Amino acid sequence: MTTSSHNTAVTVLGLGAMGAALARALVKAGHPTTVWNRSASKAQSLVAEGASAASTPYGAVRASDVIVVCLLDHDSVHDVLDPVAGELAGRTLINVTTTQPEHSRELAEWAAREGVAYLDGGIMAVPEMIGQPGSSILYSGSADVFERSRPLLDLWGESTYFGEDAGLASLYDLALLAGMYVMFAGFLHGAAMVAPAGVTAGEFARRAAPWLTAMTGAFAGFAEVVDGGDYTVPGQQSLEFSSLDDMLAASAGQGIGTEAVAMVQRLIQRQIDAGHGAEGFARIYESIKQPAAAR
Amino acid sequence: MTTSSHNTAVTVLGLGAMGAALARALVKAGHPTTVWNRSASKAQSLVAEGASAASTPYGAVRASDVIVVCLLDHDSVHDVLDPVAGELAGRTLINVTTTQPEHSRELAEWAAREGVAYLDGGIMAVPEMIGQPGSSILYSGSADVFERSRPLLDLWGESTYFGEDAGLASLYDLALLAGMYVMFAGFLHGAAMVAPAGVTAGEFARRAAPWLTAMTGAFAGFAEVVDGGDYTVPGQQSLEFSSLDDMLAASAGQGIGTEAVAMVQRLIQRQIDAGHGAEGFARIYESIKQPAAAR
Repeated sequence: MTTSSHNTAVTVLGLGAMGAALARALVKAGHPTTVWNRSASKAQSLVAEGASAASTPYGAVRASDVIVVCLLDHDSVHDVLDPVAGELAGRTLINVTTTQPEHSRELAEWAAREGVAYLDGGIMAVPEMIGQPGSSILYSGSADVFERSRPLLDLWGESTYFGEDAGLASLYDLALLAGMYVMFAGFLHGAAMVAPAGVTAGEFARRAAPWLTAMTGAFAGFAEVVDGGDYTVPGQQSLEFSSLDDMLAASAGQGIGTEAVAMVQRLIQRQIDAGHGAEGFARIYESIKQPAAAR
Repeated sequence: MTTSSHNTAVTVLGLGAMGAALARALVKAGHPTTVWNRSASKAQSLVAEGASAASTPYGAVRASDVIVVCLLDHDSVHDVLDPVAGELAGRTLINVTTTQPEHSRELAEWAAREGVAYLDGGIMAVPEMIGQPGSSILYSGSADVFERSRPLLDLWGESTYFGEDAGLASLYDLALLAGMYVMFAGFLHGAAMVAPAGVTAGEFARRAAPWLTAMTGAFAGFAEVVDGGDYTVPGQQSLEFSSLDDMLAASAGQGIGTEAVAMVQRLIQRQIDAGHGAEGFARIYESIKQPAAAR
């Protein structure tokens, strides 16, 4: 079984840092791997490692039954695939390009019309993590493709399947990435706060990484309250107690911007204004769920 | 030595969840511990565990040479201490109330005038963590008080001293708390994104906690770039590549607010607008450092 799966020929379209990492893992595992990239120079190092370079998407698609697409965005996927749709028919398409859920669904419908089996993926890893512990890839779309392709998918990281709705993996992907980008902004805000006191960003990072790691421990408690729907459950830190006034004043006092902290404060304040100040902090979920009137 | 330090009498003013946790750790370690709280009922369980309750701040201060203050905010500290300043003279004051750096400095000056040795602390832990692994408390102010009080301070968590500037611990505290609150908002934003697809907040939390923990691994790299001051160092994800358009569109498509993600996008966009789009993501630090014009 293993030998047979390692003989599956795979094509990778798109050799940005992520596409190259995916292709490299395939080459290392012994898959005949064909690669294509708009600027051909990016294929050179992979060819040196054992991949074959195709000069056109058409040639790349013809080379394998399994086509992995890792391009810039949804438009790039159509730009590259539309002209070779006829050749794709009957093959398997695994699209790990970061796209909106609606775009993943649209691609799944397009693939169905063209007779292409479609699996959508969202990669929760940086390129360096591919094939390493901690790499996780979320999939949705064809359950059949997911099952058949497991030996290949598992080369890249932990594979999780969410269901036939092709948009689910993208949605999950974007939600986790949203958490990441917002956290990054929070970290850099903190670094900017302590900088005027002579603390380097590196020193702050050494404290902030374990601190925020420990604080992810609070997510499960927030989630329990959110899922339970009762923000008055005792034992929570209340919104009124979660005043960010000192934080805002200290940021302003250091001469830096306050946008990151002010954003959280607005989410808190809307719930306090609505009479929920004595309820738990998790209630800012409601500020997100019910957006403020356009301002 | 140990015996002697365990005989140090300590008073704790303020028995919110955190003050009570600090007092409990002292009682457990065998310190004669006197407690006071504005509403006296909060002292009952601590008295049952072996603490003495004072009915006034004056009585509480007289009972010990070391006075720990854990109140709501800076104003509460003055409200409670100003009337008993004469009695505080010659004693040691350890203030772990969350305050702005300027307020900590003001209290240090006030204490100096009153003949009180002053140490300021910022607690990086939730009450349940006090005395447990992972609890960390940051101190600044009197180095002498810090050294003398180590046996006591170390009962609560890992103790770190930042320097004689009494405001430093508060600044660090608020910077780490800023990172935490912003991360919490990001997590809840992600949970709100996937909710309409039938994903519970609990299920999202089980993925988001290890994901964001893994992503704290990026802080050191961002910090290296920030401290180096050269955002063009190769190997970074560029600002132009960090488009949050899909994330915003997907959030809006789910009918939820976009404030958390829009905040990050504004920080990115200001740098792109200033011509730095090809530089690394860490450059949003500059958007925070140089606040936008008031809008």
